[in-house]
Amino acid sequence: MAKLNSSLSRPKSTSPKPKSTLPADDQIGSGHAVTSYDVARHAGVSQSAVSRCFTPGGSVSDKMRARIKQAADELGYQPNAIARMLFTKRSNLIAVIVANLGVNPDFTSILSKHLIERGLNLLFFTLDQEADAERAIEQLWQYRVDGVISASELSEAHISLLRERGIPLVFINRLYEITGANSVGCDHAEGERWLIDRLVQAGHKNFGIVAGPKLSAVSRLRTHAALDRLQVLGIDKPAIIYGDFTYEGGRQAMRTLFEGKKRPDAVVCANDLMAIGCIDEAREVLSLGIPDQVSVVGFDGLSPGQWSAFSLTTVRQPMQSMVKAAVDMLVARIADPALATERRVFSGELVEGHSARLK
Amino acid sequence: MAKLNSSLSRPKSTSPKPKSTLPADDQIGSGHAVTSYDVARHAGVSQSAVSRCFTPGGSVSDKMRARIKQAADELGYQPNAIARMLFTKRSNLIAVIVANLGVNPDFTSILSKHLIERGLNLLFFTLDQEADAERAIEQLWQYRVDGVISASELSEAHISLLRERGIPLVFINRLYEITGANSVGCDHAEGERWLIDRLVQAGHKNFGIVAGPKLSAVSRLRTHAALDRLQVLGIDKPAIIYGDFTYEGGRQAMRTLFEGKKRPDAVVCANDLMAIGCIDEAREVLSLGIPDQVSVVGFDGLSPGQWSAFSLTTVRQPMQSMVKAAVDMLVARIADPALATERRVFSGELVEGHSARLK
Repeated sequence: MAKLNSSLSRPKSTSPKPKSTLPADDQIGSGHAVTSYDVARHAGVSQSAVSRCFTPGGSVSDKMRARIKQAADELGYQPNAIARMLFTKRSNLIAVIVANLGVNPDFTSILSKHLIERGLNLLFFTLDQEADAERAIEQLWQYRVDGVISASELSEAHISLLRERGIPLVFINRLYEITGANSVGCDHAEGERWLIDRLVQAGHKNFGIVAGPKLSAVSRLRTHAALDRLQVLGIDKPAIIYGDFTYEGGRQAMRTLFEGKKRPDAVVCANDLMAIGCIDEAREVLSLGIPDQVSVVGFDGLSPGQWSAFSLTTVRQPMQSMVKAAVDMLVARIADPALATERRVFSGELVEGHSARLK
Repeated sequence: MAKLNSSLSRPKSTSPKPKSTLPADDQIGSGHAVTSYDVARHAGVSQSAVSRCFTPGGSVSDKMRARIKQAADELGYQPNAIARMLFTKRSNLIAVIVANLGVNPDFTSILSKHLIERGLNLLFFTLDQEADAERAIEQLWQYRVDGVISASELSEAHISLLRERGIPLVFINRLYEITGANSVGCDHAEGERWLIDRLVQAGHKNFGIVAGPKLSAVSRLRTHAALDRLQVLGIDKPAIIYGDFTYEGGRQAMRTLFEGKKRPDAVVCANDLMAIGCIDEAREVLSLGIPDQVSVVGFDGLSPGQWSAFSLTTVRQPMQSMVKAAVDMLVARIADPALATERRVFSGELVEGHSARLK
């Protein structure tokens, strides 16, 4: 912030540039940069009007703004990002909110690439707890982000606040039914049906379910779908253990499942990380062969799950497609806030690894 | 960006607030918000002066700025982040640059937490190639970031550009000797010496080295340290394979090492991810027992390396300490740009897993 002008704000256009006759008190810097004074002169308005045009909350009529914008364009005036956003009312900043747990580690870099392709930048927030969401919402408002992509759950109050403020919001993998926020997700229920069907076809009869945290919507969707399908297929109600989406949580859940009276022959986990924990616990502590003595399946399609040590049977979420859809949807909504609320749901892909006996 | 004023810009102070007597053309919104007009009246200056104070490159003397700032403080005027940054010359934005490969996946969330604690926000850039760095540098200049933390290598030209523009820069794990940029790193050489010493003490004689990309400074530091130590200890010059820091790269390197005439009894990898690949390749394709037939060690201390499937012997980088040091150093440099350039080097921690025979 030391200097407010730089080579970056110099015009790149080849249009003729008026000779600078700046007032004595002008401290803008390099004589080569087109200044607000140049724009004012060219537009035939006062510098004060140009200045207001670039001031947060500055009063200027739409007609005046258009006139100043034309003059600025003709001179190849390149205000910096902050000035430009006051002009265009766009910051080109997209806030990305992620919860610390349960997020695909590739998500941020995939998202960053898709945003860069659109000339957008990523203001990053991680949430540990509700208070963090409060802070994030305040900050993204302060920075006048153009929109928000959230891979974390947000409260109804926060969602409403964003709506009131006209900040478009797209959820990834948080399929709210009631809020009117856009969302992109994977078809969790379909994926779970695939897994359960394959396991039952292969003769598994005693199921254990390792769910995620009780408050997680994704876990609920996956777990309920698995339970429903088991019921439809006439399988005994399985034991359910609630984990926390972590590797350690998976290990502990596996221990608990095998302390019960009825040892499962198939363990269905609400994410890959817990499934990996189950496999390690089974082999190292319970001395069980995978998949000979127990089958383990996950959900997500994380890279580590596909390492040959685990070779996890799982449902891979189409992360590239989901992220691209989220960015497309957000950009469209920013351009036209009146667009109808939309949910886009992608099918996952069944990955048949060696962690489950499928025949 | 639909509305430029909101409840968030309302004063939270309890100081008396002058009755609003806004001009008819004032479009700022809610009558409760303290406006630039209120500040102007209170400071006894023109609104135009207040406006200039909040305009990028706007001309206003230091004396005038101080007077306006006092009035703004007294009224509890809370300009939004953009307006405030024009005032304080601080955006509270820190650009974080990461390369797509070879970065600890926990890094971003740890960094995000440390920045939040300081009231700073994270503008995120991932780099795939040199052109991405070019774009990132331009963007972070456009957004007037207060400083940069880079876990990616940058060219001399880019480092110079940041220095010229007065934007403080701290590298994480990129220990440049010549640039004058601040840096925080792990003592790679010390860690490699620990690993080599333990392996040699346990009787290993035929070493294979799996390096990272030839251009990676981190890989060079780690690999050279390992080679130097082996030489000092009188061990035969090992085979060196260059990998790409990925799991697949590790698998391929292991295959290549065991196609050679002299099969190694110890494989030293420049990062954990490649070491995990080596272990999987050894077990699944080469049918080798780990560590009975070959020991494998890594470097980083990634969580997956510590899963019991791998139980990797490695050197854990003190990521929390390193990130905290980077943020401390950057904040200090922002406050006082004249501070001397500093390098902070942390010792890693030897993790003795079951992937190596250490006795």
